[in-house]
Amino acid sequence: MKYQASVKVMLKASVLDPQGSALERALASMGHKNVLAVRVGKIIELILESPSLEEAQREASQWADNILANPNMESFTISVKELKLDEDSLK
Amino acid sequence: MKYQASVKVMLKASVLDPQGSALERALASMGHKNVLAVRVGKIIELILESPSLEEAQREASQWADNILANPNMESFTISVKELKLDEDSLK
Repeated sequence: MKYQASVKVMLKASVLDPQGSALERALASMGHKNVLAVRVGKIIELILESPSLEEAQREASQWADNILANPNMESFTISVKELKLDEDSLK
Repeated sequence: MKYQASVKVMLKASVLDPQGSALERALASMGHKNVLAVRVGKIIELILESPSLEEAQREASQWADNILANPNMESFTISVKELKLDEDSLK
């Protein structure tokens, strides 16, 4: 069975995010004064073959923890869903 | 009212994603042969002040289109939700 795992990796709140701050200032300088905070993270979408949803979640979570995120500076959330055959999900 | 907008920006399927390919090869070289595809995108989380959910969605969508994403190479999806006072959502 094929699954799509989305791993969202954000810098921890205590870690400075220069890219987010730059974007915040850019939006403010364009007149969008109602933007209170901006943070930028990355999202990693994986298609994986797995015998079950639970196993896919376990694997994705392990990869996120060991490879995709730096647990000292980043936190991550994972969502895994079964991939429908007619879905072209990595667009 | 405060809203949190999450803008997910991914390279279009027709655009090469070297970072995703590198990750795919790295996972394969570590023995994870069940990974079929990887793509890496960015996620921009904004906290904004807005009179209504609709207005927050309109603004976030306009910023995504004009500032946050490059419509030639990237596609984006947006989700906006009201921010609860006790939520510390940019973690």
